[in-house]
Amino acid sequence: MSVDADIEDIPEGEHLLKLCRSIRDSIFESISRFSEVELGKSIGIGKDGTPTKKVDSIAEKIAIEKLRNFRVVSEESGVVGEGNIFVALDPIDGTFNAVRRIPFYSVSLCFSRSDRLKDVFFAYVSNLETKTEYYAGGNWNKGTAFKNGSRISVSSAEDVTCNAIFYYPDRRYNFKRIRIFGSASLELCLVADGSFDCFVDIRKGEKGNGMLRVYDVSAGLFIAKCAGAEVSDIQGNVLDNKKISMDERFTLIVANAKLHNKLIKLLG
Amino acid sequence: MSVDADIEDIPEGEHLLKLCRSIRDSIFESISRFSEVELGKSIGIGKDGTPTKKVDSIAEKIAIEKLRNFRVVSEESGVVGEGNIFVALDPIDGTFNAVRRIPFYSVSLCFSRSDRLKDVFFAYVSNLETKTEYYAGGNWNKGTAFKNGSRISVSSAEDVTCNAIFYYPDRRYNFKRIRIFGSASLELCLVADGSFDCFVDIRKGEKGNGMLRVYDVSAGLFIAKCAGAEVSDIQGNVLDNKKISMDERFTLIVANAKLHNKLIKLLG
Repeated sequence: MSVDADIEDIPEGEHLLKLCRSIRDSIFESISRFSEVELGKSIGIGKDGTPTKKVDSIAEKIAIEKLRNFRVVSEESGVVGEGNIFVALDPIDGTFNAVRRIPFYSVSLCFSRSDRLKDVFFAYVSNLETKTEYYAGGNWNKGTAFKNGSRISVSSAEDVTCNAIFYYPDRRYNFKRIRIFGSASLELCLVADGSFDCFVDIRKGEKGNGMLRVYDVSAGLFIAKCAGAEVSDIQGNVLDNKKISMDERFTLIVANAKLHNKLIKLLG
Repeated sequence: MSVDADIEDIPEGEHLLKLCRSIRDSIFESISRFSEVELGKSIGIGKDGTPTKKVDSIAEKIAIEKLRNFRVVSEESGVVGEGNIFVALDPIDGTFNAVRRIPFYSVSLCFSRSDRLKDVFFAYVSNLETKTEYYAGGNWNKGTAFKNGSRISVSSAEDVTCNAIFYYPDRRYNFKRIRIFGSASLELCLVADGSFDCFVDIRKGEKGNGMLRVYDVSAGLFIAKCAGAEVSDIQGNVLDNKKISMDERFTLIVANAKLHNKLIKLLG
């Protein structure tokens, strides 16, 4: 793919971009009709084992209906549909923010030709409230990433005294600035466009593995990769063979190659 | 002040609210004319000793012009004007976010009858991008706080396994959820309206005192107090006699009384 590649050059890119925008707009329109209190009501337990909020349920129904030709993997419903193309869906990434109308929550969609991350070919993340959108197309090791139609790339910061998205520090660290906004897919896009120098999630779950799930982060990861980021868990293992499923959990370090290497040594 | 108090019942409240909205709208209109790159350019050193970005300079000029009848204390210009009423001004709280158009940066205005926090009688904070606004009137120990015209109050969470704004963890902690959005005044308002249970800033500066400055947080502190929060540094010292000046630096714990008490014991 050339440096001047546009979304028009990506097979199916234009079509998928329109579909994603239509999902985003329908989700925001629907949830805007409800009060914050309504949106935050717990209405059951999702397939991932965590409580489902009304806002998640409303958004997922809309997205799955529009994705009826795909095989969708999503937080609340698990695997839905029979299509050849897999979609990792997070209809609301940042539910806590969404029900408080803190303007940092997103829809996240990641399209793959198989059930593995390495076969992802298109991804879309949009802030639902501000409509700022990120997307990327190509393949797992070479693609092109955009923010609101303009090409983006990661920062060139090489030193660990940089600006970090960091879940969660529990010892001393050297970052200049730490932010935790609460929507991983959107935060990965802030690394993709160079607003932040790295995204690090070193949280450990109950079984000793990480906290992040494929449908939370796959779209953001692909966009970051297409913008020039290296992507791995905190041991430095690549994520190419991670399954688009309900089960995978992992830690994450995302940054340009030089900084990524330093962070692995520091935190791994 | 009665429970049903409205902004109309607060002396000068209506007038000051209009003035603050006019400052907010003018600031946003002006900075929207520039690109992110332009806004982020360093153009000198402010009176606080840190580099001034163009976005700060533009915003401060507009605010000071509109506040010409007041004595203004502000980050870039220091003390300006001769009025009887002191105004702690942060024209852009969250400069890092503003120059990246991350939708979490605010204007913060705090009005006092003396150079001390205890004489504050009106405060205003608004997200510049989304226009969500918070204000409060009354006095330091009894007032009324509003979000977009509706009364707000702090949460009633009593346990430290709560949702926290926390600058910065560097050891284990028990919070359920930690967020760092990068605009203290707006984050204090998220405690005032119950979105988060506490705001904690335990960062230490070079001289061993805290990192927060009066013009960063005074408006947010007053709004949080009027919404029912207890406010102190991490040793539990009240801030009533803090001067509205360039010099004060402090740590901060803000939460409802019971949680505040527990946090002092845990972190102080």
